[in-house]
Amino acid sequence: MSRILYLNGAWLPESEARVSVFDRGFLMADGIYEVTCVLDGKLVEYAGHSARLQRSARELGLTVPLDAEALLAVHREIVARNALDQGMIYLQLTRGAADRDFAYPPAGTPPTLLLFTQAKNVLENKAAERGISVALLPDLRWGRRDIKTIQLLYPSMAKMEAMARGADEAWLVEDGLVTEACAATAHIVTAEGVLVTRDLSHALLPGVTRASVLELAGTHGVRVEERAFTSDEARSAREAFITSATNFVVPVTRIDGQAVGDGAPGALTRRIRDIYIETRRAAAI
Amino acid sequence: MSRILYLNGAWLPESEARVSVFDRGFLMADGIYEVTCVLDGKLVEYAGHSARLQRSARELGLTVPLDAEALLAVHREIVARNALDQGMIYLQLTRGAADRDFAYPPAGTPPTLLLFTQAKNVLENKAAERGISVALLPDLRWGRRDIKTIQLLYPSMAKMEAMARGADEAWLVEDGLVTEACAATAHIVTAEGVLVTRDLSHALLPGVTRASVLELAGTHGVRVEERAFTSDEARSAREAFITSATNFVVPVTRIDGQAVGDGAPGALTRRIRDIYIETRRAAAI
Repeated sequence: MSRILYLNGAWLPESEARVSVFDRGFLMADGIYEVTCVLDGKLVEYAGHSARLQRSARELGLTVPLDAEALLAVHREIVARNALDQGMIYLQLTRGAADRDFAYPPAGTPPTLLLFTQAKNVLENKAAERGISVALLPDLRWGRRDIKTIQLLYPSMAKMEAMARGADEAWLVEDGLVTEACAATAHIVTAEGVLVTRDLSHALLPGVTRASVLELAGTHGVRVEERAFTSDEARSAREAFITSATNFVVPVTRIDGQAVGDGAPGALTRRIRDIYIETRRAAAI
Repeated sequence: MSRILYLNGAWLPESEARVSVFDRGFLMADGIYEVTCVLDGKLVEYAGHSARLQRSARELGLTVPLDAEALLAVHREIVARNALDQGMIYLQLTRGAADRDFAYPPAGTPPTLLLFTQAKNVLENKAAERGISVALLPDLRWGRRDIKTIQLLYPSMAKMEAMARGADEAWLVEDGLVTEACAATAHIVTAEGVLVTRDLSHALLPGVTRASVLELAGTHGVRVEERAFTSDEARSAREAFITSATNFVVPVTRIDGQAVGDGAPGALTRRIRDIYIETRRAAAI
């Protein structure tokens, strides 16, 4: 079934959704994105994603062309038009089309706003039941990973390299410290049961699911340390997991081929996943 | 006048040249590019650019969909169709359109190949006569700058920041060492008359013009040192200049607001520019 996409105010079948070859998103990766999960046809953590979209836009001097109400309405309409029960809404905003130049185009150049959906069974996720394996790879991305830009070539290369090594995903490492996964936050649980999650900086994305999970862990009596952890700490962790908008909480059971803990999804990880889904599903709008 | 562009085998007016919103060049910056200068309607240093295109493609597992003869024919035809006397041909190759995924699409997914022209008076270049000013800015790009990818957001941001500081261009600095300009190679001439150009590595692009200039300088009795230089060395240089496909050789006369040498374009820089243009114009195909 062909999806209906939103592109600059128009609703189009996916085969007709095209942008100018001069779009700066296509020529210069001059754009940002967000992914919002859909559960029961409702938006999960929408406030967090729309706030981060505004932050990314501000950092790059981009303007979101719809006000808050209109943007929410487009999210709701794309769910309805595609009869989406479970999956995600992808949103991309670029600086628009202009003859190629490193200097930004004149103010007033219309930005490009695209939204499309992907159906995915996010609740019954085999990866969440079995756990995933990750490969540790060098983090070669740019220096402002806190901005959610479409410069995703390296995460894509790292995903391929991880798969070539027999793993499902990559955890990226810089100066001996884990930054994050290709498109997810990396977490570990120490032998003492402490949840360790890297603190926010330019090195990693301020994950919306990450923030929720840390808050939920805290309110459920889990000791949380927000600090960078080494790849050695990751390898000797009791549990490990990733968080992202569409994965929620997924256990990492192998790192570089070596079992994490006993090699099965960790108890705390499972508990956090359950609490996360229960509370965020109930709060979806 | 509307240009005629080449897109995946078709010749289109620029207003009709569009790509799918699912093109990985648009969604994930999964693509590479080349810029070839046109002088007298002929291709300058074409062999160097086509070799580098193949190298970039190889590094990313991309396939150039035309063989060498066909690719050259497209370059010639785009010059003819646009009656281009002076300017440049921009070529972009992406991994093509596929539903969004960090993993690469299946082998056989058609890549996207785009070529367009920009007219520009490359010979009578005011910047070459007067010199340009550069601002030193941190190099926040990814770790594989030797691959000519379309991840150009940071160079674009740096260009804007340089302009905001009253400069024409940025020179990017990492660990105290100059890497390159936003889209050009950085060179200095020391008080002793030595041409210093950073040696090749993953930190910078293997410039086609850079290679030519180093070769020409050597054969004209200039002592050349291929090594990284510090921002302090740049500030105290006798001359400084940039090289790129469409700038050829352009003097840098101010660095962070401070005059380079006596603040006028350097004699060696002018000489190298003249030799470069004379020889490469004669050799254009």
